[in-house]
Amino acid sequence: MLNWTRSYGRADLTADALAAVIVTLMLIPQSLAYALLAGLPAQAGLYASMTPLVAYALLGSSRVLAVGPVAVVSLMTAAAIGSHAAAGSPQYWEAALALAALSGLMLVLMGWLRLGFIANFLSHPVISGFITASAILIAASQLKGLLGIRAEGQDLLHLLPSLLQSLPDLHGLTALIGAASLAWLAFARGPLRGLLISTGMSRGRTDLLVKAAPVMAIVVATVLSAALDWRAQGVKVVGQIPAGLPEWSLPSFDPGLWQSLLVPALLISIVGFVESVSVGQTLAAKRRQRIEPNQELVALGASNLAAAVTSGMPVTGGFSRSVVNFDAGARTPAAGLFTAAGIAVAALLLTPWLAALPQAVLAATIVIAVLTLVDLSVLGRTWRYSRADFSAVMVTLTGTLALGVEVGLVGGVATSLALFLLRTSRPHIAVVGWVPGTEHFRNIKRHAVRTSPTVLSLRVDESLYFANARALEDTINAALASEPQLRHVVLMASAINDIDASALESLEAIESQLSEAGVMLHLSEVKGPVMDRLAQSPFLKTLRGRVFLTQFQAIETLAPEILRPEPAV
Amino acid sequence: MLNWTRSYGRADLTADALAAVIVTLMLIPQSLAYALLAGLPAQAGLYASMTPLVAYALLGSSRVLAVGPVAVVSLMTAAAIGSHAAAGSPQYWEAALALAALSGLMLVLMGWLRLGFIANFLSHPVISGFITASAILIAASQLKGLLGIRAEGQDLLHLLPSLLQSLPDLHGLTALIGAASLAWLAFARGPLRGLLISTGMSRGRTDLLVKAAPVMAIVVATVLSAALDWRAQGVKVVGQIPAGLPEWSLPSFDPGLWQSLLVPALLISIVGFVESVSVGQTLAAKRRQRIEPNQELVALGASNLAAAVTSGMPVTGGFSRSVVNFDAGARTPAAGLFTAAGIAVAALLLTPWLAALPQAVLAATIVIAVLTLVDLSVLGRTWRYSRADFSAVMVTLTGTLALGVEVGLVGGVATSLALFLLRTSRPHIAVVGWVPGTEHFRNIKRHAVRTSPTVLSLRVDESLYFANARALEDTINAALASEPQLRHVVLMASAINDIDASALESLEAIESQLSEAGVMLHLSEVKGPVMDRLAQSPFLKTLRGRVFLTQFQAIETLAPEILRPEPAV
Repeated sequence: MLNWTRSYGRADLTADALAAVIVTLMLIPQSLAYALLAGLPAQAGLYASMTPLVAYALLGSSRVLAVGPVAVVSLMTAAAIGSHAAAGSPQYWEAALALAALSGLMLVLMGWLRLGFIANFLSHPVISGFITASAILIAASQLKGLLGIRAEGQDLLHLLPSLLQSLPDLHGLTALIGAASLAWLAFARGPLRGLLISTGMSRGRTDLLVKAAPVMAIVVATVLSAALDWRAQGVKVVGQIPAGLPEWSLPSFDPGLWQSLLVPALLISIVGFVESVSVGQTLAAKRRQRIEPNQELVALGASNLAAAVTSGMPVTGGFSRSVVNFDAGARTPAAGLFTAAGIAVAALLLTPWLAALPQAVLAATIVIAVLTLVDLSVLGRTWRYSRADFSAVMVTLTGTLALGVEVGLVGGVATSLALFLLRTSRPHIAVVGWVPGTEHFRNIKRHAVRTSPTVLSLRVDESLYFANARALEDTINAALASEPQLRHVVLMASAINDIDASALESLEAIESQLSEAGVMLHLSEVKGPVMDRLAQSPFLKTLRGRVFLTQFQAIETLAPEILRPEPAV
Repeated sequence: MLNWTRSYGRADLTADALAAVIVTLMLIPQSLAYALLAGLPAQAGLYASMTPLVAYALLGSSRVLAVGPVAVVSLMTAAAIGSHAAAGSPQYWEAALALAALSGLMLVLMGWLRLGFIANFLSHPVISGFITASAILIAASQLKGLLGIRAEGQDLLHLLPSLLQSLPDLHGLTALIGAASLAWLAFARGPLRGLLISTGMSRGRTDLLVKAAPVMAIVVATVLSAALDWRAQGVKVVGQIPAGLPEWSLPSFDPGLWQSLLVPALLISIVGFVESVSVGQTLAAKRRQRIEPNQELVALGASNLAAAVTSGMPVTGGFSRSVVNFDAGARTPAAGLFTAAGIAVAALLLTPWLAALPQAVLAATIVIAVLTLVDLSVLGRTWRYSRADFSAVMVTLTGTLALGVEVGLVGGVATSLALFLLRTSRPHIAVVGWVPGTEHFRNIKRHAVRTSPTVLSLRVDESLYFANARALEDTINAALASEPQLRHVVLMASAINDIDASALESLEAIESQLSEAGVMLHLSEVKGPVMDRLAQSPFLKTLRGRVFLTQFQAIETLAPEILRPEPAV
């Protein structure tokens, strides 16, 4: 963990410090904005960008991952706590701290028990669908901040009618500020970037300027708001933020609250972990470094525990800020420590200035940030590649939008698991025949092959387990009933990676059913590990047929007549 | 379905009628006993052995399956309804009819939708554990009938303390009758059978006599009970059964009841279907006949619906009675029609005589019948063969015994699915090298092979899907970090039967991570269907490496130096 400290030099220090300055500038508006998105006071975001970064720097295995409040986790936090307390109340923040603590404990525990693999059950289509739907939900929820109206709801079915209903109460000045901020941020990301590059500015410096656009918006809006007293004209502002470092906090230990937060905390932990690990892995591989998933769990858990005791909110590794950290040249986790120091300085010195900042500007930075997460192309891609994956995306996407983040995520995972089980339960079973002039056997439907009426050769393209064992029984029973001349069945096992106890019993049943009907069962091309396991069962001893090394040997023995150069047929 | 009627002849008639007589004799005590086991009046069992048999004969695809009340389904019926009404009350029977109706509708629907494959997700270890645990539960529950005591509970945790508590209230004469019946039935199954065979009686006739042992016990006990007026001495008897055919009945249509019976009905449907289909398939294969699982669903559903409207109880195909039917020579479903007629005659003529029958005798026939279902050898077998299968058996067995049939069954299925997912999520990935003198590549840990420091050849022994895609990424990232000379990674895909969208994205990520590190990714031995699918994605176009037909060609191209006869190393 701390193995980078030994060789830490002046060059590293300079690189890390520079990256930290850039990330700090990016993190200030994001921290404030995501705290508001989660329904918390703005300072919760700043506090969650200090101690968690220190915890991660001490324990994390990625050298460049930047942790803190992120959009999707903040949305999930709001969804989890919304039913327990009113947004803005002290109970609400306490519940958020309890959620961070619970999620932190879960992550640490998962790390110790080496359960990082659990995250693998979130398939890419489910993650894509979930991120896109969350981004749309977040953007929709920010409309109220942008327009200065009130709206309730954790999903589109509730949020949209609520937004439409209160649209007449739109606050003109707020909407103007919101629209201007949106326009500036969109301009900075798009045309401005092209403009600057065309003037000969280096790509790196351009990106840096574009990244600073939200900070500029905040500075300009805050100065205007203070000068023109927008607050008195009904514009919602961030309000007084206590200057100084975060106070120690104890999360609520209400057992009823903890119990009802169990599932949300687990979902937040897994989503946060998946987001962290994917960005960490991508960036590490670029420098031929590695991250250790179970160590990441412990580090993210510690970060959340740190957030829980220092008045923060649930955190995880953020995609865009980590990329910025990496691109800005961060070399070691010291960059994270410097960023934490930068945020601390901001909390100490800048907070009085932020009181006049209109919330609509923060809403605009959120909308622009999350709209880059919306990726509907996954629908087309998965539709073309696999209908099963497409279904998983659709269930996750529509479930999340219509019924909320938790239902959407759980529904998506359940769908992808069910479809995987369904697919493996209906294995591809090909009747194969001999390709003349070779030692190969191929599907009789795809190739011109020779077969014998007395020998049926079947290739099963799947491991045999309980859900598909009966499919093989069905296929063989059908053949038995329809082919009266049949004397031998050869099971070509080259694609069978495992045979479980149910499949073994099925094979025994097949063998005894076949032999009662006067047909012998043989195997061919059984893999080493499968053979090892079969050797531990009585099946091979009771098998009356043979186990052939290759399918060619099986046919040489059982139906040599079809191998003759000029067959009678 | 009715295709056997066309060629029906005198020989068939004789064979079917003879089988029907034998099955009827066996079915009378079983019907009464399983009705009492389910907590229903004895006549419910008789009624459930008439119209359901007719429905099955008209619709079923097995020629010899005998439907009616069976032990495990009766236990599940008691467990499902026990919480809704007091056993013996009219509401209880109505709920049982609702359960039969709901289960019947589900089965018919599953048949129409061709969902028979759902039953495949009950693995053999789960079924074994469930049947054994159910048999133990049934035997334990019959102790109260055998001893003439009262006891409550649907699982051992409740049943055992209740039995122990009321043991002092044991009714001496009842216990004597129970013990004598048990002793006679055990003697008939064991020593008597050997004795008769040793006197030169044919095996078939002996079996017939042994099967008639319960009927003899009933006749003797009823005569004694009537003569000595056991009822007046406190022995519980079957009591007055209305003579005659069943009345039409309408199951309760209480929506609350139906909703709470949804899960039990689904479990009963699936367990009953699995029991039916396994015995049907085994018997059909002996005569090179087939059964059609989805047609079986419709037939079993119709049987349950028939039971629901004629004052019956949930039914399914029974193992022992179907085997008896088969062994007795039944040739067509007409045997079922004759059996139904036989039971109708019994209901019309014999019922007045059964009033004095002690319930302890029926309890004894149940205990002897279900103890043959207890098979603990599955524990040893699965332990030796596969720890995953052993765990599934243990969860099902202990769950069913301790927490009841529903928790045990659902827990067992969940465990077996989770363990399957876990296994496929950790695929066997072997680093392979060239076996000198051949075109084969084998695991470097198992064989003496040659490898090149610049080429890493990996064979993945599993289809690539979301849960294991990251495992491959991890393996390749580890190799990338530890082998600085690496220039090529070859993925040998001979055992990969499918690549889903997540795995495809992982491959794309691997390819881009590798190429940023200056390493090329290649594939070899990709199967036809997998190649077809990859061709629909942009992956093959962006892949900078090559797709080799065989692993040998890959090494010939990438590291020909290791193929030289006398290498420098």
